[in-house]
Amino acid sequence: MPLKDTYILPAAADMHVHLRNAPGPIAALVAPTIRPAGIDTVFVMPNLAPKPVTSVDEAVEYKKALERYAPDVGYLMSLYLHESVTVEDIRRAKQNGVYGVKVYPRGATTNSQWGVISLDQFDPILRAMEEEGIVLNLHGEVPSDAASGVTCMNAEEKFLPVLKELAGKYPRLKIVLEHCTTKKAVETVRGLGENVAGTITAHHLSLLVDDWSANVHHYCKPSAKTPEDRRALLEAVVTSNGKFFLGTDSAPHDITAKKGKGNHAAGVFTQPFALGYVLHSLELALQRGDLTPAQITDEALAGFFSDYGRKFYGLPPATRKIKLIRDAAQIPESLKGENGTEIVPFLAGGRIWGVEWL
Amino acid sequence: MPLKDTYILPAAADMHVHLRNAPGPIAALVAPTIRPAGIDTVFVMPNLAPKPVTSVDEAVEYKKALERYAPDVGYLMSLYLHESVTVEDIRRAKQNGVYGVKVYPRGATTNSQWGVISLDQFDPILRAMEEEGIVLNLHGEVPSDAASGVTCMNAEEKFLPVLKELAGKYPRLKIVLEHCTTKKAVETVRGLGENVAGTITAHHLSLLVDDWSANVHHYCKPSAKTPEDRRALLEAVVTSNGKFFLGTDSAPHDITAKKGKGNHAAGVFTQPFALGYVLHSLELALQRGDLTPAQITDEALAGFFSDYGRKFYGLPPATRKIKLIRDAAQIPESLKGENGTEIVPFLAGGRIWGVEWL
Repeated sequence: MPLKDTYILPAAADMHVHLRNAPGPIAALVAPTIRPAGIDTVFVMPNLAPKPVTSVDEAVEYKKALERYAPDVGYLMSLYLHESVTVEDIRRAKQNGVYGVKVYPRGATTNSQWGVISLDQFDPILRAMEEEGIVLNLHGEVPSDAASGVTCMNAEEKFLPVLKELAGKYPRLKIVLEHCTTKKAVETVRGLGENVAGTITAHHLSLLVDDWSANVHHYCKPSAKTPEDRRALLEAVVTSNGKFFLGTDSAPHDITAKKGKGNHAAGVFTQPFALGYVLHSLELALQRGDLTPAQITDEALAGFFSDYGRKFYGLPPATRKIKLIRDAAQIPESLKGENGTEIVPFLAGGRIWGVEWL
Repeated sequence: MPLKDTYILPAAADMHVHLRNAPGPIAALVAPTIRPAGIDTVFVMPNLAPKPVTSVDEAVEYKKALERYAPDVGYLMSLYLHESVTVEDIRRAKQNGVYGVKVYPRGATTNSQWGVISLDQFDPILRAMEEEGIVLNLHGEVPSDAASGVTCMNAEEKFLPVLKELAGKYPRLKIVLEHCTTKKAVETVRGLGENVAGTITAHHLSLLVDDWSANVHHYCKPSAKTPEDRRALLEAVVTSNGKFFLGTDSAPHDITAKKGKGNHAAGVFTQPFALGYVLHSLELALQRGDLTPAQITDEALAGFFSDYGRKFYGLPPATRKIKLIRDAAQIPESLKGENGTEIVPFLAGGRIWGVEWL
């Protein structure tokens, strides 16, 4: 039994998006796709290059620039944890639209060269975040390292002790383990208190290691893993109970970064069809028997897409509704913008669920 | 302590090469690189497209065509195991230069769409091979399958029971587990009788999953795996005792196949610098502490590069010697041939050990 042909759900919140520099050709292309995708709220990653967003003032500027491209979206801004971030920034954060601080272990992913090695030195920042209700967003991977046996396949699992330690040390700190990709991550998040949640992307609900091994557009960090891991993510979506919510990690890269001399950038671009990709993945999971039809309720979808993320970030529920319609959207081969910018979306060329605002 | 700056060794034998269709632009480009690489003997894979080599007559034709491109190489030919292969082919094989029969599990790698599902139906062929001393060459992976949890990361391990079963059922059949990539494969080959050996490529001695995750030119099947697996391969090279020998699986693909719409072909092209890549990998292993200088003896290198493979295939030792010289060769960015053919070699642009014939 497949999914229904339409779903009427609250407008979605995507709690992990990359919009890139603004002003800039990628942001100009991507930000306007958010609202048509059924999403009214996004949590915006700070890993810009050549300089990440490390102060409230920079975040405010960035937000204004994004609003010029797409004013009808609520942008929750974030800071990139770096030694230049101050306690004063944390105190001023929320009133200036900054909802979280992202931690990148140094070297783990795109633009993580400014990332941190240890969180010990940031204790005053983390204490202030705890007091101010600012979320700690973790890129949950340790850097690959041959000597200690860390590869992209176990880097997340090896990070989980750090998550547990942080949750123990800062029991009132809101922590999100971003883009969970493993069964062990799901189990760890479930086992921790209410202050800890996980985001799950659309693409990790369908991709496995084999899928990205031979396709540059499916490659991302953390990389997609095994069938068992995918099953755990799918189950987490439909049995979330508030512990897991949508964070697409939509990561637009110009096609030249995906087709270079040999190396290619990590990231899957899912922003314009984010909700459709999730429904598509759930349907494939039904076909494989990874999920049962009874698990995919409107309540579960509303929670994962909209309610749980907003609640975790202290926002009110959505006021508008959207309608998702089977096969109503055509995924283009690429999105083309100014200065020759070209971004290839996930499942380019296919048909996918479309969105209508009610 | 690094490697020596020169090694004088017997001419090498590369017991697993892809030369592609002949006549053809890739074979025209690649075959002439074999001899300058210090290699006088190659075992040639039969997975040509649109039709693999499945009869002795086809193998003889293919060999003649390769000899036109590079007459100074001994080509050991192989058949692609398929229902059209006959016992009569096996009886006629060796006198016609055919030394082995390659088994591809269907769907496991490049041009494996004609491969086999089960070996049971080939019992008469395998019995005849046992009698005639024809080698069974195994692509040791089961096809990826989500339902049974098989991915490119455990496909080789899941194949090992098949190897053990074959070795038990056909105790006099010479079997090569091609391109071993895991510690478990190395241990399994070691644990089986003298009739079972393994080949090891140059690139699996340096690459890990992280290396191919973001580089199309490093992607191959079986895929490179973990630091622990790489260490086991490096140890197998220097402690082979005849159980492991060089089979580069050098797999040239035109650059268009590596930079397509998204999907890219599996295969690392190592033919022109095969021995140098191995030495380079051994030196990196010394630097990491994966091997000790005392393990890298001239005897071990001579055995792995030349003696063990020839002996396994029933050939006499090499008569000529070669000299390997540190940094004497420049790896080009690509090899360019007729009709716009362009092949990117492993570690393009770097310097590597060169070869002089003595």
